[in-house]
Amino acid sequence: MAKLVILGAGVMGSALAVPAAQSRDNQVILVGSPLDDEIIASVGATRHHPTLNTTLPDSIEVVTEAALNDADLRDADVIVIGVSSPGIDWVTSRLQTAAAQPPILALVTKGLVAAGASAPPQTYADALPATLTQPAGGLVGIGGPCIARELALGLPTCVTFASRQPANAERLRESLQTDTYRITTHHDIVGVEACAALKNFLCIGVSAMFSSYPLEQSHAKNPVAGLFNQAILELALLSDWLRAHAVTQPVADGARSMNVAFDLAGMGDLHVTVGGGRNSRLGRHLGEGQALSTVVNGPMQGVTVEGVDTGRHLSAGFRAACANGDLDSASFPLTFAILNCIDNDELFEFDFQSLYTATTNR
Amino acid sequence: MAKLVILGAGVMGSALAVPAAQSRDNQVILVGSPLDDEIIASVGATRHHPTLNTTLPDSIEVVTEAALNDADLRDADVIVIGVSSPGIDWVTSRLQTAAAQPPILALVTKGLVAAGASAPPQTYADALPATLTQPAGGLVGIGGPCIARELALGLPTCVTFASRQPANAERLRESLQTDTYRITTHHDIVGVEACAALKNFLCIGVSAMFSSYPLEQSHAKNPVAGLFNQAILELALLSDWLRAHAVTQPVADGARSMNVAFDLAGMGDLHVTVGGGRNSRLGRHLGEGQALSTVVNGPMQGVTVEGVDTGRHLSAGFRAACANGDLDSASFPLTFAILNCIDNDELFEFDFQSLYTATTNR
Repeated sequence: MAKLVILGAGVMGSALAVPAAQSRDNQVILVGSPLDDEIIASVGATRHHPTLNTTLPDSIEVVTEAALNDADLRDADVIVIGVSSPGIDWVTSRLQTAAAQPPILALVTKGLVAAGASAPPQTYADALPATLTQPAGGLVGIGGPCIARELALGLPTCVTFASRQPANAERLRESLQTDTYRITTHHDIVGVEACAALKNFLCIGVSAMFSSYPLEQSHAKNPVAGLFNQAILELALLSDWLRAHAVTQPVADGARSMNVAFDLAGMGDLHVTVGGGRNSRLGRHLGEGQALSTVVNGPMQGVTVEGVDTGRHLSAGFRAACANGDLDSASFPLTFAILNCIDNDELFEFDFQSLYTATTNR
Repeated sequence: MAKLVILGAGVMGSALAVPAAQSRDNQVILVGSPLDDEIIASVGATRHHPTLNTTLPDSIEVVTEAALNDADLRDADVIVIGVSSPGIDWVTSRLQTAAAQPPILALVTKGLVAAGASAPPQTYADALPATLTQPAGGLVGIGGPCIARELALGLPTCVTFASRQPANAERLRESLQTDTYRITTHHDIVGVEACAALKNFLCIGVSAMFSSYPLEQSHAKNPVAGLFNQAILELALLSDWLRAHAVTQPVADGARSMNVAFDLAGMGDLHVTVGGGRNSRLGRHLGEGQALSTVVNGPMQGVTVEGVDTGRHLSAGFRAACANGDLDSASFPLTFAILNCIDNDELFEFDFQSLYTATTNR
């Protein structure tokens, strides 16, 4: 039997509990963060999860942080970090207090962490305290196109589990895979984490195309498809760059593998992200010619847009790498167009002339 | 000055004339096929193209086949095969009659040609008569996400020109690129042609996901994204397979290159194809549980669905390759699901359990 403890009862942590609880071999404990008290109270009373807007199976044990025993953290076979980035500090301090070093630590949190004015940003694969991830066995990152509510409803969902220690990704896959939650594994956790964060950022620019070229009660589709493609090419290069500067390289043979940007964590996840959600909504506003400041003080006031945060953490290191030649500026017209909105509150402008300016023959 | 003759005044041939005519250095002659008389009459009288539903620039010369001089075909720097697959025979006989061997022959036509019960199908890069493509300099194939009307309206459009002789693709790019028609080049014409045809076929299965999993006045998005990703993975493998059996290999260094399925001709074009059009429409019907025969005799009676024709030309050779081990059946669940509808009129059924059945660690 595997014992899984999920820290954070927001939408993604709670949704992951559903496939986890499908196997009778698993014991699943879903733990509310200090911000999740209402959720825990609701699920405890009626099994209804208010933000997922669905009912959780009875076999999931649901507890508040205060009710969680340290022993459960120390005994766990798998601990899932199921919070969004503002909750990371709570998780790490809770794990350290309990002296928990589970055989497998899985990460749902998506984001980049700026590493200084001129250094490449880090993914959480590197930014988490080493006491948590070493020697406990190597973190497993989770990427791919997954709207949490659809996962909780049992709708078909395809994702990637990545770890520098492939056996860990494989063990977690064996614990969580169901008939409809389908999991592929990969060794490149930094690439998967980079894609998970940066696809939100790049989605903003792709989604601007929905409103930049209106056409007969709808919009032109060629510009959307052209920038979707460009976003993946830039994502692959950014992923390569972050991996090259990561603290620990993947253990497996990277040269043999396809860049994860061209698989579920990149191409697949960008597809679902562009299709809806807050990053896409922001992009549509920018494509109408509104400045970022106008949008975040107006129609999207109070809404957290992950891609903007990711852009802020990316910017200084990215611009420095372009300036010092570590990256080739000409390869990143979409990244620059989005960053100019975030850094300088410029209007979004993507000039298609910046594409394919020279013989490419790729 | 470059003289371009476009054979076929349907939507794609006519749309290509627009960027071609934007440069004053080009002379552009658009030639109607025997089926295009009404179009030619309309454009001749008012410049209005009835199926593109837009006005063509005055600088494009528009003529019927009967009015075309053989000398114009023999003098052309570029001849564009601008017909859909049923027009290929007209084009080839017209070129042979005129003894035309232009420096550059470009191909808009998309489709596969069955090469026998157990042989892999061919792309037009191989199936066209060698007298046309050799020694005249090597065909240039055109792929990428391009709705013809949007191109004709000057909306931003990104495409790939591919030729076994990269200089030809580059020369054509120089003749046609505008501020908004952006062109990358590639040596892998077989891959680009394979993607151009097969993306229509695979689109049918991806689009079935729009109706297979309805959710609150819309549909679940995770299954669409999962199968979009799967379609590109299968497209890359099918493209590799067709290239391996092509008559002539690319001249450039293939090992260095990315598979074109992960670029405009595959990922980009599938994005726009899934977004609308006849292949996507058929897929949505299949996803509702209707048999192909029901759809083509009912709501889509009389509508040509290119992806179905492509599937018919693919099927025997593909199944033979799976049977003899040239291809690994387990890698093609989506291809099989669509072929079962086309070959056997089975209801569309995609079992997500067929994905990631073993340790992948790709």
